Amino acid sequence: MAEDKCCFYMGPGTLKIDRRAFHGPIQQGVLQRMQAALPEDKRGIILLKGGDVQPVYTTDGEILFRQESYLHYLFGVNEDGFWGALDVRNGRSMLFMPRLPASYGVWMGVIQGPNYYKAKYAVDDVAYVDDMSGMLAAAGAPCIHLLSGTNTDSGTEVQPPSFEGSDKLTLETATLFREINEARVHKTPGEIVLMKYVNHLGSRAHVAMMQGCKPGMMEYQAESIFRHFTYSKGGCRNQGYTCIAASGSNGAVLHYGHGGAPNDAQMLDGDLVLFDMGCEYYRYGSDITCSWPVNGKFTPQQALLYNAVLDAHRSVIAAMAPGVSWPDLHTLAYRKIIGGLAAGGLLQGDIEEMIAAEVGGLFMPHGLGHLIGIDTHDVGGYGDGFPERIQRPGYKSLRTARQLEAGMIITVEPGCYFNPVLLLPAFGDPVHSKFLVKEAIQPFMSMGGVRIEDNVVVTESGSLSLTDVPRTVKEIEAVMAGAHWPFGGVR
Amino acid sequence: MAEDKCCFYMGPGTLKIDRRAFHGPIQQGVLQRMQAALPEDKRGIILLKGGDVQPVYTTDGEILFRQESYLHYLFGVNEDGFWGALDVRNGRSMLFMPRLPASYGVWMGVIQGPNYYKAKYAVDDVAYVDDMSGMLAAAGAPCIHLLSGTNTDSGTEVQPPSFEGSDKLTLETATLFREINEARVHKTPGEIVLMKYVNHLGSRAHVAMMQGCKPGMMEYQAESIFRHFTYSKGGCRNQGYTCIAASGSNGAVLHYGHGGAPNDAQMLDGDLVLFDMGCEYYRYGSDITCSWPVNGKFTPQQALLYNAVLDAHRSVIAAMAPGVSWPDLHTLAYRKIIGGLAAGGLLQGDIEEMIAAEVGGLFMPHGLGHLIGIDTHDVGGYGDGFPERIQRPGYKSLRTARQLEAGMIITVEPGCYFNPVLLLPAFGDPVHSKFLVKEAIQPFMSMGGVRIEDNVVVTESGSLSLTDVPRTVKEIEAVMAGAHWPFGGVR
Ligand SMILES: [Mn+2]
Ligand SMILES: [Mn+2]
Repeated sequence: MAEDKCCFYMGPGTLKIDRRAFHGPIQQGVLQRMQAALPEDKRGIILLKGGDVQPVYTTDGEILFRQESYLHYLFGVNEDGFWGALDVRNGRSMLFMPRLPASYGVWMGVIQGPNYYKAKYAVDDVAYVDDMSGMLAAAGAPCIHLLSGTNTDSGTEVQPPSFEGSDKLTLETATLFREINEARVHKTPGEIVLMKYVNHLGSRAHVAMMQGCKPGMMEYQAESIFRHFTYSKGGCRNQGYTCIAASGSNGAVLHYGHGGAPNDAQMLDGDLVLFDMGCEYYRYGSDITCSWPVNGKFTPQQALLYNAVLDAHRSVIAAMAPGVSWPDLHTLAYRKIIGGLAAGGLLQGDIEEMIAAEVGGLFMPHGLGHLIGIDTHDVGGYGDGFPERIQRPGYKSLRTARQLEAGMIITVEPGCYFNPVLLLPAFGDPVHSKFLVKEAIQPFMSMGGVRIEDNVVVTESGSLSLTDVPRTVKEIEAVMAGAHWPFGGVR
Repeated sequence: MAEDKCCFYMGPGTLKIDRRAFHGPIQQGVLQRMQAALPEDKRGIILLKGGDVQPVYTTDGEILFRQESYLHYLFGVNEDGFWGALDVRNGRSMLFMPRLPASYGVWMGVIQGPNYYKAKYAVDDVAYVDDMSGMLAAAGAPCIHLLSGTNTDSGTEVQPPSFEGSDKLTLETATLFREINEARVHKTPGEIVLMKYVNHLGSRAHVAMMQGCKPGMMEYQAESIFRHFTYSKGGCRNQGYTCIAASGSNGAVLHYGHGGAPNDAQMLDGDLVLFDMGCEYYRYGSDITCSWPVNGKFTPQQALLYNAVLDAHRSVIAAMAPGVSWPDLHTLAYRKIIGGLAAGGLLQGDIEEMIAAEVGGLFMPHGLGHLIGIDTHDVGGYGDGFPERIQRPGYKSLRTARQLEAGMIITVEPGCYFNPVLLLPAFGDPVHSKFLVKEAIQPFMSMGGVRIEDNVVVTESGSLSLTDVPRTVKEIEAVMAGAHWPFGGVR
């Protein structure tokens, strides 16, 4: 779409993103944080390295390029091999582009020069990477700010990038990682609009799967419906994470769908499904989970399980507001799920005692949710000055222990699973077994699990879910029977 | 699909592959080549390292795992972190599997032991990777054969894998790469059946795109039709290469569709499209290209261009047989394309003189085709004892200069493009300009190009195309107008 040089746009019906309007406030936010963190004489130039194309093993095949998250955040560059710079002293933005061989013109497309990219990415200047260190030196900044830190979801060290001529520059690695992460935690209005787009589209695609679901289908056929819907109707070529299309007992496997468990089971009459899929547009992705019965009608047992999780989901969203602690909401979710299972006769005893005994983690061994944005598990969950990871069994997988703040987008995804790996030992363990009503749990052991996941913005006064799918048993059964979604006045 | 332990199967309507029947003959072929290449006292154990999961940059996101080609070839293992061994002395097959942490059972699926994988992959034994070097040492083989060489399509060095305890073994790297590549060049009957499956499915998906094509659609919407069709109807989660959905002048960009040119143009009334897409099943992919007018009717100029390429395509397939040199067929394609353009008045002069003057490379700057199988550009095109790469401009991109042999599968993909990067300089260049009828070429300059690509098996007596799509102008126009494909008796 060449008409609007500085816009990202995938055509009719898709979201048009003006890069100047989108990245301008993001750059301003990062600059303000850097300026606040650094005295005037220590303010230099932020330098980020974009992603390179990766080969498929030793072949000449390529893994489809997706831009590195930090470079995308500040500059929105689609192409590989770029670097980006932002001067903390004056806000001046620059890109450095690769010098392409002439053969690129035959195999990959028209070779564009700096002026083309200057217009496309609305930056102050574009030069070639081989001129980068000289130009950075000439800018006379006291230092170059580079990323350095640990991604707290992967545990991977983010290393400062190396580049030719860096030995002639003063490199500074103590500030940028913390400040840019904190900027990414707080979404701009433009980012919220984009997250709403991928939620709206992903929600409609979940409805398409619900309505296309029937016994005998393969799990991946539902995945294919989701991917086709979000690509052909919304321009989403990628998903933020591998689609999880789990039926029956596969629902208990939290990251089902990977290469070793590739959504290849048949969905059977009587099964529940747990579909966790989101779509990605301009590198921002949604992360939505729905659970429903393959045949369109919940059994009483399925409804019991489902409603326990839905109660947790709704209670958490209702309780969300600035200042509320995320681990406290995690406990709230446990309270509701345990309460629901106890009301159904699967658990016995005092609810708070069960929470203290880590019964929650037997049924929901993951955290309540995670910050989301460019990365599905977005950065900033832990860090200097914020609460540390809680080491209790049911809480150690929480991806943040922070208090909520306005502008955060976080997933709310309580779940309840019957995983033999966790429950079979618990039946024989004195701490847990007294709470577990084994005969009542037994019929649920092959049911897999239920997860209900929305992407929720924290507002000044509370929260707002960006996800819009049928959630109650009644809504799901009606939509699976052919009702239109969203309903007219029924909700 | 757990029922058939040693089968790969994606459910009703998809191809069921019995791994024992599929990989047995492959292993035998490799063993025979290794035994022929090595005296009895130098025969050791082949050891291959499978692929590992790769992260998305520094996040905890994962790139969807696809097994490494050589390990898949011998063993067909879906999971990451495996090694495979095959004893050249006695044919004994072994897998070494990773020892998984207990958390795998919660996040990724049931942790299976060696016996499970022994049955699934029909090998003689399975052990853990941490026992690998000890077991290899205990086997008392004179050496361990490892891969080492250069992939001649990527130029990448295939390095022998390193592993703990290798210092206590004798490593041998001079034989395996050459012999396993040569085995991969010659497909087994099982591999041919699989290649036929992905061609059949990919062909039907091209027909679906033809019939779904209309002016105003975005290129990626066609890509999405292809991917949805081949996944939902055939179980193909991946494609062997990034889909190329090029319309108008984008058709001249040979590898359009990559991250920097992501099939994001609108297809206009009057445009030609060039769609190069294949689907992958059990790591074997098809590679099919079709070209057609967006509005369903060829203009006379489009038909002229198309028929020149079709003539080359059909002439080459008709001439294919064991012993025929691939560069000679490349020349035959040039002869037909140049002849067609000359007959249409775009070129003037003697056809053989034009071939000698490298006019062919101005219009078709890529090779006629490539070996295909697990890798889209499959291994074995060049190597010790085979013809070297030809350095002439029109021939230097040929991916092999070999003579055809029975059992090879190779793409036949002549094309003709109007790329300003090549043609504008040629108009001003005395060697080429005398052959170019500039006024006649001018109206074609925005047309992009046409490529017609089949996947063809070399048989004992000739060749057999595995691809089955509408190819003539008449066939394409009929199918785009709604005719069923394949035709009843029309062809
Ligand atoms: Mn999530
Ligand atoms: Mn090809």
